[in-house]
Amino acid sequence: MNVRVGVIGVGMIGQDHIRRITQVLTGGSVTAINDVDAARAGQVAAGLPGATTHATAQDLIADDAVDAVLVASWGPAHEEQVVAAIGAGKPVFCEKPLAPASDACQRIMAAEMAAGRRLVQVGFMRRYDAGYRAMKAVLDDGGIGAPLLMHCAHRNPSVPPYGFTTDMIISDSAVHEIDVVRWLFGEEIAAASVLRPRRSGRAAADMQDPLVLLLEMASGVLVDDELFLNAQYGYDVRGEIVGETGTVALADVSEVTVRTANRHGGRVPVDWRDRFIRAYDAELQDWLNAVAAGTSAGSPSPSSWDGYAAAAVTDAALEALRTGQRTAVSMAERPEFYAK
Amino acid sequence: MNVRVGVIGVGMIGQDHIRRITQVLTGGSVTAINDVDAARAGQVAAGLPGATTHATAQDLIADDAVDAVLVASWGPAHEEQVVAAIGAGKPVFCEKPLAPASDACQRIMAAEMAAGRRLVQVGFMRRYDAGYRAMKAVLDDGGIGAPLLMHCAHRNPSVPPYGFTTDMIISDSAVHEIDVVRWLFGEEIAAASVLRPRRSGRAAADMQDPLVLLLEMASGVLVDDELFLNAQYGYDVRGEIVGETGTVALADVSEVTVRTANRHGGRVPVDWRDRFIRAYDAELQDWLNAVAAGTSAGSPSPSSWDGYAAAAVTDAALEALRTGQRTAVSMAERPEFYAK
Amino acid sequence: MNVRVGVIGVGMIGQDHIRRITQVLTGGSVTAINDVDAARAGQVAAGLPGATTHATAQDLIADDAVDAVLVASWGPAHEEQVVAAIGAGKPVFCEKPLAPASDACQRIMAAEMAAGRRLVQVGFMRRYDAGYRAMKAVLDDGGIGAPLLMHCAHRNPSVPPYGFTTDMIISDSAVHEIDVVRWLFGEEIAAASVLRPRRSGRAAADMQDPLVLLLEMASGVLVDDELFLNAQYGYDVRGEIVGETGTVALADVSEVTVRTANRHGGRVPVDWRDRFIRAYDAELQDWLNAVAAGTSAGSPSPSSWDGYAAAAVTDAALEALRTGQRTAVSMAERPEFYAK
Amino acid sequence: MNVRVGVIGVGMIGQDHIRRITQVLTGGSVTAINDVDAARAGQVAAGLPGATTHATAQDLIADDAVDAVLVASWGPAHEEQVVAAIGAGKPVFCEKPLAPASDACQRIMAAEMAAGRRLVQVGFMRRYDAGYRAMKAVLDDGGIGAPLLMHCAHRNPSVPPYGFTTDMIISDSAVHEIDVVRWLFGEEIAAASVLRPRRSGRAAADMQDPLVLLLEMASGVLVDDELFLNAQYGYDVRGEIVGETGTVALADVSEVTVRTANRHGGRVPVDWRDRFIRAYDAELQDWLNAVAAGTSAGSPSPSSWDGYAAAAVTDAALEALRTGQRTAVSMAERPEFYAK
Repeated sequence: MNVRVGVIGVGMIGQDHIRRITQVLTGGSVTAINDVDAARAGQVAAGLPGATTHATAQDLIADDAVDAVLVASWGPAHEEQVVAAIGAGKPVFCEKPLAPASDACQRIMAAEMAAGRRLVQVGFMRRYDAGYRAMKAVLDDGGIGAPLLMHCAHRNPSVPPYGFTTDMIISDSAVHEIDVVRWLFGEEIAAASVLRPRRSGRAAADMQDPLVLLLEMASGVLVDDELFLNAQYGYDVRGEIVGETGTVALADVSEVTVRTANRHGGRVPVDWRDRFIRAYDAELQDWLNAVAAGTSAGSPSPSSWDGYAAAAVTDAALEALRTGQRTAVSMAERPEFYAK
Repeated sequence: MNVRVGVIGVGMIGQDHIRRITQVLTGGSVTAINDVDAARAGQVAAGLPGATTHATAQDLIADDAVDAVLVASWGPAHEEQVVAAIGAGKPVFCEKPLAPASDACQRIMAAEMAAGRRLVQVGFMRRYDAGYRAMKAVLDDGGIGAPLLMHCAHRNPSVPPYGFTTDMIISDSAVHEIDVVRWLFGEEIAAASVLRPRRSGRAAADMQDPLVLLLEMASGVLVDDELFLNAQYGYDVRGEIVGETGTVALADVSEVTVRTANRHGGRVPVDWRDRFIRAYDAELQDWLNAVAAGTSAGSPSPSSWDGYAAAAVTDAALEALRTGQRTAVSMAERPEFYAK
Repeated sequence: MNVRVGVIGVGMIGQDHIRRITQVLTGGSVTAINDVDAARAGQVAAGLPGATTHATAQDLIADDAVDAVLVASWGPAHEEQVVAAIGAGKPVFCEKPLAPASDACQRIMAAEMAAGRRLVQVGFMRRYDAGYRAMKAVLDDGGIGAPLLMHCAHRNPSVPPYGFTTDMIISDSAVHEIDVVRWLFGEEIAAASVLRPRRSGRAAADMQDPLVLLLEMASGVLVDDELFLNAQYGYDVRGEIVGETGTVALADVSEVTVRTANRHGGRVPVDWRDRFIRAYDAELQDWLNAVAAGTSAGSPSPSSWDGYAAAAVTDAALEALRTGQRTAVSMAERPEFYAK
Repeated sequence: MNVRVGVIGVGMIGQDHIRRITQVLTGGSVTAINDVDAARAGQVAAGLPGATTHATAQDLIADDAVDAVLVASWGPAHEEQVVAAIGAGKPVFCEKPLAPASDACQRIMAAEMAAGRRLVQVGFMRRYDAGYRAMKAVLDDGGIGAPLLMHCAHRNPSVPPYGFTTDMIISDSAVHEIDVVRWLFGEEIAAASVLRPRRSGRAAADMQDPLVLLLEMASGVLVDDELFLNAQYGYDVRGEIVGETGTVALADVSEVTVRTANRHGGRVPVDWRDRFIRAYDAELQDWLNAVAAGTSAGSPSPSSWDGYAAAAVTDAALEALRTGQRTAVSMAERPEFYAK
């Protein structure tokens, strides 16, 4: 079966998903486009034989030529669009965040539970990265014993000098570790703290960069996450889980080793696309396969609950950033509907 | 455009390509099946909605529902099938070898030249491997200066105790290095020699395993290729090019590093599929894209000429194995038609 | 010149230093022995031609055949012995801690200042490790820009189930990082905090293992130090400094890489001796050279001030461990006498 | 006991050994100096309290203040000096080569056998390198099964444009691998061949650089040794033994890993001193210890037989270089006197 996808929001990430569906993955096509910028929607649709544009997200969702909806609009619009797709009974892939506010995420869950089946996948793509998956396999196989600690680093070469705030280090960057550690350890995050190391002179004047986010899992596993958005040297995502009998760490991802000028070594990715492109491919292929099969995507597919949990932890981390205090995560009980 | 592929030969490799076209890649479907074992053809077709079976390869090639042909039959049948596809004006992807004998390869080239356009891609997938591509990029960018030497190792954990001969170490295994070094260095191989190290007691009694194949490129670049088919510890393909100012080597491909029991390290692939699956995906996607575009696949797509050259070098290497002597490669002039 | 060393305390570490002076290093000999266990002193002296035993540390220090004193007794005895050596005008190498209490360290400094010249080297051997020295060289050369963060891990395979307390994780283990980061960054530590991750079931029931110690340097550089005394898999000391433009990390120290059974990798040291034996050799050779030259050992030799600073930070860290609060380090001004 | 060493030949290597004995190692002193350049001998002796100079090597050997002799003169003088030291019953450490010609080596063996005890250690220091020793330990423990192949590379950044001949690539450089593979595998080399890859444009016009030397061990183990004297990028000695069930390779020797400018990696040694200084220290300490103990140095100490065998293999390799033919090594039977 070919899954006919309607795409809401065709900025950078939306266009990248369209390229993925039409040129890389199997089993999908893009049949409808909506964007707040109608001209941009038209331009994108022009490059897609058979695709139509819709004046509103609602129209797109209602289109009979749309089997499933991909939401890549800006965060504040997600709730209305995702709830509408659920209302139409159509599977929806929603880029992160599911919604910026945790209560909006709860309303999405309520709509989904009312619909009676799981229709939402959130775009936390790290669960589909070969490195994290191998790490989880080692952990789950008991290869390092019970986990005790995890050390993470999330380094970007740079962010624009204007428009990227300290809060966004948490909400845009750390949210990836927030989701992936929940998945790796199979448990919720109980509390968050934020440490402020010496600031880099390469960061914008009003930005606290780097930060260290501490996350306490329900079991006591402690995660420290270095977030450094102006690390200059490359895009570098690191992780090491320390268990009772050993450790497992993400390996460097260079294809070749070069020896020149008294150095040997490999390359560091230039950006997130370079590092995670295959994970983006895999998450969306998994979604297309599940839609085609008429099922919900199973593990490791992130659900609305995962989107909600990420929002709740983000709230706590932002408060910890503001107050300088360790902050407990405030979360609802996990509904049976979202049992693993 | 969707490329409708007819598959000739549905043994292990043929079925794997079908899985690839139908479940992994974009832009293709499998519409026709032929196999010398009609029952097997039927079974495979049964799992493919809309696919028909054909009693003969000729019938499949003639089928209007077949835009392009994938030949995965046994080697001796390739010539007739590939020539027939050329005769029908249909693009053909032919698993290696293009043909076991170099004169058969020449007849394929003659047919293709008579047809007036390039229709054949040979299944040398290493050119599509991320490691070899990064290696070639470093070389071509001048990062290590002019190449002088290359060290290769090609290790399989084991081969069946019966049926895998010493000759096959050259014709089945070394042929991958034979093709890839021609591509890496952009030149032909002038001569071959074979060295016989101490035999492994794990090899079949009549098998000289490991072997070392020496290849002399036209420019004088010397390639040594350790071929070890019963290496036990894993599937390990290694390569290092030594240039005038540095070297570039394939890196290890482990996703994670584990520390346990006084060891740190990563994994070695278990078999060729584990190591090269993405290269197989990429070669066939490249072919589908080219067919859809109505063009010949360009670089790095291996042509009939590449299939012929590999056969000619294989002949020389087999004679070197028999005689113990350095053997010059006997090759025709490269027709303008196959100019890069 | 041959430096005649008197050794106070011939337990494990004292005997190891004697082996070092007599069998590995140049320019020293052991001429006198004292130990609270006279029988042990006699046994050790019996293996050293020309060495005498002394009933008290004071007698040993007064011996004309003793040019310099090595103190390897238990910590509470250090102050009296070191002060006595200073009083006798003899150079003294004192195993860490200089003294368990920071005020005792201050009294040692007072004695040394009264003597008018630097006579004391403290046994913080990591400053002499090739890894840390290379790390400091990269940092000091500006290779990674200004430092912002450092991640450390200090893992022992195990400690005895009785007798090793949680406090000792700070005072015996973390003290090595406390000294080495002061040296690496060339500044004092301003505050300490302690985090309590999930406990390992392999640790003694009353032991909080692992711990994370956070150290804030005066400049704001933040150091996180994972201390894990029952890590099982080996003795593993890790460190990565994150600077404004790059990072530098201790490399793995395996001599060979082995490929077997689908794994490739190297070894992890079995214990601290295996990892740091050359650093112990180098610190003591540096001391012997300085004594022979009649000078104080210069950089990186740890002084009484360094011993005092380590004690003051240890005090703060122990209070942080007890209270769960971030604790400012309380330290005297650095006397001009101890200017770098 | 302090070993009083007389040094014959105080060029670069001789002076380096003097520095080693007087400033690094334990148990030795330098009491006598001889050099063909008397002025140089005087200058070196002037820096050594108590050392005298001798007009001839014979005089130095006869000096009662000389317990043992270190020969670091030029190769053609070795035979006479070593035989004289043997005649005086004094242990002698002789830099490689023991003698340039294999028959001279045989005369040395004859003198030593006549003396009735082993008095000679040859300066093949790689046997004392931590990497090669770890490699041999893995091999001897059966960790990779029976050895079948070994791949070596021996790369220097550059050699002077004049005075370093192609023959010297064998006699000066490859001789290190010739010795170390005999030691690693515990057997003799049966035959040698030389391959001539494409020449580097960075080599002197009349120099064939790089070369590949093939060595066939008596058991059939095949060693390929890339010798590249103008490799530019650093001093890089590599080795991998391939066994029936696994491989063991020399690891890179960088103390730290640096991440900057989209690269991660470590350093390559700048020259042989940087790479092997500890092996030089260890070989000479082993010799001093054996002399002090009045015994011959045992394993891995290279004997006169090892010096002879290296000369015999060098002869075969040089003939292979001249003729282009595989050349059998011509060697005498190993006398019982030199049984392991």
